[in-house]
Amino acid sequence: MPDQQPAVTLDEIRELIRKLPGPDLEAGTAVLQREAQLTKPPGALGKLEDIVYWVACWQHDAPPSIRHPRVAVFAGNHGVAEARKVSAFPTAVTAQMVRNFADGGAAVNQLCRIADSDLRVYEMDLEHPTADFTQGPAMDEAGCARALTYGMMAVETGIHLIALGEMGIGNTTSASALCMALFGGSASDWVGPGTGLDGEGLGRKAQAVEDAIAANKAAMADPLEILRCVGGVELAAIVGAIIAARMARTPVLLDGFACTAAAAVLHAVDPRAIDHCLVAHVSAEPGHRRLLETLGRDALLDFGMRLGEASGAALAINIVKAAVECHAGMATFAEAGISGKDG
Amino acid sequence: MPDQQPAVTLDEIRELIRKLPGPDLEAGTAVLQREAQLTKPPGALGKLEDIVYWVACWQHDAPPSIRHPRVAVFAGNHGVAEARKVSAFPTAVTAQMVRNFADGGAAVNQLCRIADSDLRVYEMDLEHPTADFTQGPAMDEAGCARALTYGMMAVETGIHLIALGEMGIGNTTSASALCMALFGGSASDWVGPGTGLDGEGLGRKAQAVEDAIAANKAAMADPLEILRCVGGVELAAIVGAIIAARMARTPVLLDGFACTAAAAVLHAVDPRAIDHCLVAHVSAEPGHRRLLETLGRDALLDFGMRLGEASGAALAINIVKAAVECHAGMATFAEAGISGKDG
Repeated sequence: MPDQQPAVTLDEIRELIRKLPGPDLEAGTAVLQREAQLTKPPGALGKLEDIVYWVACWQHDAPPSIRHPRVAVFAGNHGVAEARKVSAFPTAVTAQMVRNFADGGAAVNQLCRIADSDLRVYEMDLEHPTADFTQGPAMDEAGCARALTYGMMAVETGIHLIALGEMGIGNTTSASALCMALFGGSASDWVGPGTGLDGEGLGRKAQAVEDAIAANKAAMADPLEILRCVGGVELAAIVGAIIAARMARTPVLLDGFACTAAAAVLHAVDPRAIDHCLVAHVSAEPGHRRLLETLGRDALLDFGMRLGEASGAALAINIVKAAVECHAGMATFAEAGISGKDG
Repeated sequence: MPDQQPAVTLDEIRELIRKLPGPDLEAGTAVLQREAQLTKPPGALGKLEDIVYWVACWQHDAPPSIRHPRVAVFAGNHGVAEARKVSAFPTAVTAQMVRNFADGGAAVNQLCRIADSDLRVYEMDLEHPTADFTQGPAMDEAGCARALTYGMMAVETGIHLIALGEMGIGNTTSASALCMALFGGSASDWVGPGTGLDGEGLGRKAQAVEDAIAANKAAMADPLEILRCVGGVELAAIVGAIIAARMARTPVLLDGFACTAAAAVLHAVDPRAIDHCLVAHVSAEPGHRRLLETLGRDALLDFGMRLGEASGAALAINIVKAAVECHAGMATFAEAGISGKDG
């Protein structure tokens, strides 16, 4: 991550969120019109039909296409991880996993191959973790804005679908703190085993989340301030990427708990700000199901996954592709010479 | 379908089912051993890990692979459809859809392309529907055995995963009758709108199912007799294909209600006989959810699809592929030089 002056301030981000473009309902209508003519009973492709409509509305194009999907994984380190031992793995694993991504050895590499997707991994100054947020803000304003900007820059034009995810030892603690700050409840409502904490570790994690909220009371009225104070650089980057994807007409697949918690920051600013995002899967991390209920969102897949690194989002790319390909490639009743209903 | 003497009688089928090979637990154990070393927290890939174990057990191979998946769609016509108007579409649509499959215009064609799967469509004497089973048996013994044998022959060696499905106007009526005969309940418990029946049509369909059961009382004690009397040629072929897949070491993905109802015939003979089958999705056709509960089976996907033609099973191929590729392609902790848990 370049250590330059931020191109965007938090106030400018707030302004951007207010001005996000809405869905292209003309493209959506064109999809519905074609859908009704395809060689299947109306509605017979179920959620796949909903997905095509959604892709068209946010690509501003009908029929939509997914020729070039991307998986973007943001990696960051958290001061709280070393300070409070809230993860089953040491913080060195974040950088080690980034090398594993580069070497093609992680789950997400295999999943990208199956999805015929490119993979970009954004290593965010892993040598310099955020400050321990149980003692005060994780980031200063410039650092948070820089991370947001970095995430925005990751969204290039010409990408038809972007699957977002993260790698960061300790970041389910940050996600839990974000959720508690945004939506209330107790720390134990939001914390879970993450990569595999035992019961004692879980107690430490809940305490760290409570301490984080107590140490950052002044931030609690504003979602972006909450992000700055109890988030992390990789989560701020996801927020930036979601905003930039909206402007680039790129629909978004969200991965699990940490990724959705980042999206929830935007949702708290304006619920419409994540309408171009689909939740790919519901994680086994218990806070994720609670968060989806709070956001009123369903997930596409429910496979008990809890790996992060965009794995669930990458797995869902082929579902979206399948939906779009059915819509674009199927014959109409007229083209195929097929008798209509009750015909 | 060649009109030759059946190679296999129903009694020989019964004998085959009794002798089906079990899972290769050594291959399963080898998967578990490798799984524990891969660069992820234990269990973090959730259901994907269960799938790899299942594929290995039934391919009798570890690590398993899915280089050559196949989608097989069996098409047949039902006398009950013309006689009792139990479908929203005319029976001519079965043959028209078979042409649409050949021309690449159906949903399953697009889904096979996304799954990089071949597609075989087995047209089963569409000019000669089964007899109207509200008046007596749908098939004689030779006809049912021929259809079973035909399905068995469709499973060639060298296929790593087979997704089974059907096309047949009227066959959700047949599936409902199979379920009522196998598991009890009332006709209205098992019938649903199929391709889009209205309320009046639904009443006709329930009555047809009740009449089918009444007209074939003598068959009710034996699952294969039930198949002969209220099934259809495409459903008998699916039963044959499931048996042959077990012997060919080819795991099976089952599609929706009609396909699972065919598998339920085998389950009623011996519940272990479909252990090499995964249910790809739960259909919007209400009988399917009830059938899965009865069988004690979960489905991978829940997308409200209700198209048949193996569409849900084809959609799930990439999920199985993803599971297998993660297992085979991921680095171990040692290979990647990554610190272990609590390390």
